[in-house]
Amino acid sequence: MTALATTVSDAVIDRLCSAVGPKGFILDPDLMAPYLLDERGMYRGKTPVVLRPASTAEVAEIVRICAETGTPIVPQGGNTGLCGAATPYEDGRAVLMSLTRMNRVREVDPLNYTITVEAGVILADVQAEAAKADRLFPLSLGGEGSARIGGNLSTNAGGTGVLKYGNARDLVLGVEVVLPDGRVLDLLCGLRKDNTGYDLKQLFIGAEGTLGIITACVLKTFPRPGDVQTAFCAVASPAASVELLSRARTLSDDRVITFEWIGSTAYDFGMRHIPGLRRPLVNDYDHYVLIELAAGSAASGLRETMEAVLADGVENGLVLDAAIAESTAQAKAFWKIRETLPEAQKSEGVSIKHDVSVPISRIAEFIDVASAKLTARVPGIRVCAFGHIGDGNLHFNVSQPAGGDGAAFQALHHDINRIVHDTVVGMRGSISAEHGIGRLKREELQHYKSPVALDVMRALKAALDPKGIMNPGKVL
Amino acid sequence: MTALATTVSDAVIDRLCSAVGPKGFILDPDLMAPYLLDERGMYRGKTPVVLRPASTAEVAEIVRICAETGTPIVPQGGNTGLCGAATPYEDGRAVLMSLTRMNRVREVDPLNYTITVEAGVILADVQAEAAKADRLFPLSLGGEGSARIGGNLSTNAGGTGVLKYGNARDLVLGVEVVLPDGRVLDLLCGLRKDNTGYDLKQLFIGAEGTLGIITACVLKTFPRPGDVQTAFCAVASPAASVELLSRARTLSDDRVITFEWIGSTAYDFGMRHIPGLRRPLVNDYDHYVLIELAAGSAASGLRETMEAVLADGVENGLVLDAAIAESTAQAKAFWKIRETLPEAQKSEGVSIKHDVSVPISRIAEFIDVASAKLTARVPGIRVCAFGHIGDGNLHFNVSQPAGGDGAAFQALHHDINRIVHDTVVGMRGSISAEHGIGRLKREELQHYKSPVALDVMRALKAALDPKGIMNPGKVL
Repeated sequence: MTALATTVSDAVIDRLCSAVGPKGFILDPDLMAPYLLDERGMYRGKTPVVLRPASTAEVAEIVRICAETGTPIVPQGGNTGLCGAATPYEDGRAVLMSLTRMNRVREVDPLNYTITVEAGVILADVQAEAAKADRLFPLSLGGEGSARIGGNLSTNAGGTGVLKYGNARDLVLGVEVVLPDGRVLDLLCGLRKDNTGYDLKQLFIGAEGTLGIITACVLKTFPRPGDVQTAFCAVASPAASVELLSRARTLSDDRVITFEWIGSTAYDFGMRHIPGLRRPLVNDYDHYVLIELAAGSAASGLRETMEAVLADGVENGLVLDAAIAESTAQAKAFWKIRETLPEAQKSEGVSIKHDVSVPISRIAEFIDVASAKLTARVPGIRVCAFGHIGDGNLHFNVSQPAGGDGAAFQALHHDINRIVHDTVVGMRGSISAEHGIGRLKREELQHYKSPVALDVMRALKAALDPKGIMNPGKVL
Repeated sequence: MTALATTVSDAVIDRLCSAVGPKGFILDPDLMAPYLLDERGMYRGKTPVVLRPASTAEVAEIVRICAETGTPIVPQGGNTGLCGAATPYEDGRAVLMSLTRMNRVREVDPLNYTITVEAGVILADVQAEAAKADRLFPLSLGGEGSARIGGNLSTNAGGTGVLKYGNARDLVLGVEVVLPDGRVLDLLCGLRKDNTGYDLKQLFIGAEGTLGIITACVLKTFPRPGDVQTAFCAVASPAASVELLSRARTLSDDRVITFEWIGSTAYDFGMRHIPGLRRPLVNDYDHYVLIELAAGSAASGLRETMEAVLADGVENGLVLDAAIAESTAQAKAFWKIRETLPEAQKSEGVSIKHDVSVPISRIAEFIDVASAKLTARVPGIRVCAFGHIGDGNLHFNVSQPAGGDGAAFQALHHDINRIVHDTVVGMRGSISAEHGIGRLKREELQHYKSPVALDVMRALKAALDPKGIMNPGKVL
């Protein structure tokens, strides 16, 4: 990060605005405001200008000017990230580049099972374009109505389809990237196999804009499921959940596409605070899972498969009770329980959140150990955990003791983070399973990542962005 | 590649031998010979010593000594690579490091669907270890009885399971790598989700030992199929093959695990030269495909699914005739046709081989265009093409005109490569789909890869291996 400009001069701003034309920049503070507040409201940044290029050439021209003048750039997609990667710092030294105008679908190729889109296409629109060609684009997450695919790739988004289809990085065959010197790295090929040198694309995916700017991508698509079966079950324990998943994978021919675990505290919060939520089961239990199976055609007997999976679970003492959705509306109602958990938790006071993963085989142990340690530290603490247990990924959130002092609880957040993250790392887990690092977890990364891995990351950053203009102060 | 030693001094050899102990090195030229000839017999290299470390610590110690003394290292697994990456140059300046003694299975975790093995474990043994835990490790290729997993990862091996399970890089959750300075980068975690910074592991996978030495890995496993159905079909054309695959994916619930196309010239070569091969179909045709479907359980009606796929193909004019294997022996007989094609081609004189890929949707066009151009250049040339059409990957091999002058044909190999590779690159394809670059395709890579991509590769190489000791003169 040598020789970065301490302020952006008017002359540089003029050059940048000229590069994108009158529709391509925002200088009015009111109009800039929505770009400068992050999704969670943690950071309110400053910038002299929001740039909105409409083409790869414009992105490249902006980056060239910034490289020449040592001007930092913060790239931004739909501004739905959860770790502050897309928000500039408060010093106002960086320009913000919004990719939202780069929103063209460049090609849909059903036979190749690919779709080529620009970085600014909204995730839900990618899904819809694929569906028009009778294909599935399986990346699916809460923010899909406003998240942009370039941001999804830059943060290697996860979501509810990972178990079957992988993370964002697994869904990418090619990318187009503007490098930190303004050159365009065109890796926009739709090949399943290409062993001509290093896998450069993966370097930019999940790099949160610190190594270059993804401007377009070739994504994999899949056959659309003709049938989906959804069940809501009570299970005996987290260990039983994991065992159930393993048996379900085998019994269903690996057709499990969703396997979401919900602890009773989270479930109870939902039932208490979310209007219209209904209990799918007659009794209350300590642990629940939402299971979804998908099959190619409606005639594939998937309902019977789901019944067989659940019957096997009951027989083996894993499943205590279960309901299979009888309609799309009922399936949606089951999903609503899962999707409204973050909202429900808000009504219970101050919460401290962790997006962690461990090997699937250690999930149960993790929940036990971390919960016990937290309770020892903060008697009455409420572990409101849920998440993608099939990926080993939990949203291990904790709420303040009921009726306690929220501010006092908030003041313990360093201690609480340390307890959870120490436990995770002790099991060779990850302190950021799907949300990334951004600004929020930068210090935690320095604390927990191995010094050798950090050194390699720094070496790569220095090699590709020697001037340090790409989203400085994020991730590393 | 500054300051590399021009010869390896006796003092350095002594230090290296001491680092691995008496069982860990070979100095006898006769015993070294098998390590110095590549699989295809194209290159016979020289080295002062073959080192055979038995642990990560020993690998690290060797690399530290080499880094300190500017001694180049050529890492080698099972020595089954097809592009000469694991063979030292003839100048004898590099030491050879064989990873074959690092052959421990470190952990099998069925619940996490992972297996952790050292780099020197034979691929077939990885498969067998997974099977013992009722899991499938799906990487499968001709050389699996002698190829080592570290080499498979370093070359990002493909094979016949890619359509369903991906390339080697898709099967890896974590790696342990000795960096070019001798430090150990421990990324050996078994997580499905980990967004804590750049995806470092992918950089080493497919790098052919030029960025570091993979010493161990955590691999994904899958439920074992309980039923596999194999069919051999005559199809109307390459375009019909691709269309058939697309329909089969949808009709079978995406359970196609193999889809191998065979052109009639290749098929005829097999029937002519391979003893014991039987024609699966009564008549001869211009194009064939070998299809395999897999299901979790034997009770899943997979036979009926295969019949439905083929009936749909006949109805739509894609399939001209088909036979479904009635037994494992018959399935093996179908596979033998596919697997013996390279051997059969040898009997037809000089051949020139290409391992290429294009988007699946352009496979048919590629075969037509490239064949026409080749015939125009060399009348009578015989295109003996076959391969993983479901991945867009063809082994587009050509044989000399029947009865012609082999040497004269061989002399045209530059022209022929240019025709094939120009056509591939014109369709945004790859000149090396699964075999890698090594030494064989280094010049082709310089010719065809974009200058920007080559620059990025060089920058990464310089960042991680500033002394240039890791397998110099390979890939880049």
